[in-house]
Amino acid sequence: MNGRMILYTIGVLLKVEAALMLLPVTVCLIYGEKPWCFLITMAVLVLAGQIMSFRRPVNKSIYPTEGFVIVGLSWILLSLFGALPFVLSGDIPRYVDAFFETVSGFTTTGASILTDVEVLGRGVLFWRSFIHWVGGMGVLVFVLAVLPRSDAQMMYVMRAEVPGPSCGKLVARVRHTALILYGIYLVMTVVLIVLLLFGGMSLYDSMIHAFGTAGTGGFSVRNLSVGYYDSVYIDYVIAVFMLLFGINFNLYFYLLIGDLAGIRKSEELRWYLGIVAVATAIVTIDILPQYGSPLTSLRYAFFQVASIITTTGYATADYGLWPNLSQAILVLLMFIGAMAGSTGGGIKVSRVALLVKDALRETRIMRSPREVRVMKFEGKVVDKSIISGVHAFFTAYILLFVASVVLLSLDGHDHVSNFTAVASCVNNVGPALGVCGPVGNYSTFSDLSKLVLSFDMLAGRLEIFPLLMLFSPRTYLRK
Amino acid sequence: MNGRMILYTIGVLLKVEAALMLLPVTVCLIYGEKPWCFLITMAVLVLAGQIMSFRRPVNKSIYPTEGFVIVGLSWILLSLFGALPFVLSGDIPRYVDAFFETVSGFTTTGASILTDVEVLGRGVLFWRSFIHWVGGMGVLVFVLAVLPRSDAQMMYVMRAEVPGPSCGKLVARVRHTALILYGIYLVMTVVLIVLLLFGGMSLYDSMIHAFGTAGTGGFSVRNLSVGYYDSVYIDYVIAVFMLLFGINFNLYFYLLIGDLAGIRKSEELRWYLGIVAVATAIVTIDILPQYGSPLTSLRYAFFQVASIITTTGYATADYGLWPNLSQAILVLLMFIGAMAGSTGGGIKVSRVALLVKDALRETRIMRSPREVRVMKFEGKVVDKSIISGVHAFFTAYILLFVASVVLLSLDGHDHVSNFTAVASCVNNVGPALGVCGPVGNYSTFSDLSKLVLSFDMLAGRLEIFPLLMLFSPRTYLRK
Repeated sequence: MNGRMILYTIGVLLKVEAALMLLPVTVCLIYGEKPWCFLITMAVLVLAGQIMSFRRPVNKSIYPTEGFVIVGLSWILLSLFGALPFVLSGDIPRYVDAFFETVSGFTTTGASILTDVEVLGRGVLFWRSFIHWVGGMGVLVFVLAVLPRSDAQMMYVMRAEVPGPSCGKLVARVRHTALILYGIYLVMTVVLIVLLLFGGMSLYDSMIHAFGTAGTGGFSVRNLSVGYYDSVYIDYVIAVFMLLFGINFNLYFYLLIGDLAGIRKSEELRWYLGIVAVATAIVTIDILPQYGSPLTSLRYAFFQVASIITTTGYATADYGLWPNLSQAILVLLMFIGAMAGSTGGGIKVSRVALLVKDALRETRIMRSPREVRVMKFEGKVVDKSIISGVHAFFTAYILLFVASVVLLSLDGHDHVSNFTAVASCVNNVGPALGVCGPVGNYSTFSDLSKLVLSFDMLAGRLEIFPLLMLFSPRTYLRK
Repeated sequence: MNGRMILYTIGVLLKVEAALMLLPVTVCLIYGEKPWCFLITMAVLVLAGQIMSFRRPVNKSIYPTEGFVIVGLSWILLSLFGALPFVLSGDIPRYVDAFFETVSGFTTTGASILTDVEVLGRGVLFWRSFIHWVGGMGVLVFVLAVLPRSDAQMMYVMRAEVPGPSCGKLVARVRHTALILYGIYLVMTVVLIVLLLFGGMSLYDSMIHAFGTAGTGGFSVRNLSVGYYDSVYIDYVIAVFMLLFGINFNLYFYLLIGDLAGIRKSEELRWYLGIVAVATAIVTIDILPQYGSPLTSLRYAFFQVASIITTTGYATADYGLWPNLSQAILVLLMFIGAMAGSTGGGIKVSRVALLVKDALRETRIMRSPREVRVMKFEGKVVDKSIISGVHAFFTAYILLFVASVVLLSLDGHDHVSNFTAVASCVNNVGPALGVCGPVGNYSTFSDLSKLVLSFDMLAGRLEIFPLLMLFSPRTYLRK
């Protein structure tokens, strides 16, 4: 393993994190808050980063193992350092809580241990939401986009960070691919900010909710989340943009270069929109008796379905009071998640589709063992190695899920809270059911549970394997 | 599809069911109960069977599709007819309830809609438990064992009914394999009856609990289940025998022919015993504060772990009052289930082991994409088609599970009851948590939910694909 290259890359990354903190510092200065908590953290980050990246490594080769380790280690360190401003400002006094909140931010989960978010400083709240935005598209993809560096094997880094069963380059150079993705991301975020301003939100609130929507994170600066604004316009704007950010960004690239056939070919998009439509219809009917008017039902159902399937986690209603059927469907959507290559979490629509199609294929083989059958997805024959990868992911995912629920049940919480808390964190959603429902929070969990859930959020965002590699002794035993 | 051969085979099977009812008729006569409910059902069965098997088909070929359809259809018809005595005797007046109870019996689930089992007639209760015994080893395997018939392609029938990712013949002829399996099964059951008699149980109670243990079913004639007898001896005898009946019967065959190497090679056995040991240890410690003495804790923990992992479902304590950790572990054990080729249900230990090993293999491939790695299980290289089959099963299993939970949430029950009721039924366990916990029952579910759960029990016992084929239009469209 190329340890020096790993150290160097992470060192650079820490300095990038320091640079990102200039934004919340600016916010602090605008609102007359003291930016010390950020300045101290920045000093620590630059120092640590400088030590790690002091000497440029001669051997710059990065193989899959290095890619996984860089990504896994980066995200942990970014969160460990990123938590400091919360502690230093006194807004979240306990470090474990601050770490949970930061992991929740970077992984675009939006699960919070805060009981009252509105009393926090504006600079700190800005940082909390801004890391959603950075984490959504990927911190290392960001580094790839902004820093000039050897293209040679950075593909392994990108592959380890971008969600989905397969990851392709849009253009020949990895760096240009990263730039294009971030460009689209930035433009869409700006459009959303402008639309929210039209809806009467302040610039600050617009930016916060645009970050949360774009990264499919879900942190708000209001205790009632998006429900605070109680505006049909804002509800629909955010709902539609949540869905847009849950779409594979490659499709926007196709749109940009006018390749409409590429979009039409996307089977995943059809599954995604189909699931949203069916789920919205069922929930609308199911909650109709509670809201009376079909339009009101549709408004709340559509928002919540969009919020949960994209794993954003914003709420306009307390779905903890909805009928069981709607709750069961929302929990199911948590697992399905958004499209691969989007900023959303979950198992991803394409993986679910591949699993279903593969099971159907196997059923046909059972019927006629001698027939040879290939599986097609998005119009192409699916490589066997991708199917194997999806199955391995699914197994690892279920094992992680089960182990986490067992560990959480050491706490005194009920089974529904435990089960859905893990479901919500591992899928990077945010709110769950029970104590951590849309009007609750994660503050009552023990420190062990908070660490387990933090691990789940990271494992969910990085799709398990980077963390698995990081904590496997075998990674360090072989040359 | 060879429809005539399917009809013929099922016709024979219905007549066998009529013959099996001679046993409860005898019980009725011994205890001075009127056996009309059975006699009428037998007449109906013989008539229906005679019509279906009137003409011996000329073309006797059975292919995989026929195997699946025969097994799927047989089990449904056996349950539809087997439910009649409950209704005719007036013990279970509603047919849906009687059907649920019969499916629960044949599939060795042991889930009951009865609120008070002790008021029922002895003949009917005998039938209710006896079908556990028949369903445990398989109804069609029984037919294969007792009736002389062409060996040619009955393997497909056996393969569709015997649980596990692969099914081999022990000896050259399918019929002899079936005979050996049933022989071992019968001897072990008789030994258990004798041991229970030694423990002070009456002959009737001994037979009932031996049927429930051997089939890993779990129906009792006592409202308190095995806890009624409150005997350390009986608890340990039943716990050990539950575990024995959860072992792959091929291993007993190896033991008979003195092939100890064959047993030592069984990786699945090591996983199975390992899981039982670890789960028992954790639960014993977890419930220690509740029971005080470590020996008492061990007794209840060992019994419940054995009962749940083998998917029997007997109870000696109300684990609904145990701490959440123990409950979570028990629910997890429901999913794992017993060994393949045993009378137990669940995903099966070998499938779980194969899924885990395959995920580990994939992780290694991710690390070094160019290395070729094969997977070994039980000392042999595992065929790729078996792995694909296990993955397809797992996907279908999860989809069935999710769909059932969503349908159950149309009822007014809480999420824990819904989730664990499906877990318990699809894994053929019996008791769950919440309303259908060890001291509860399934009577409060709606008819739709009872039918969904009946389907789950059948799908779980037959490992999904026979029912999937039965309800797939494609099965009937092709020649």
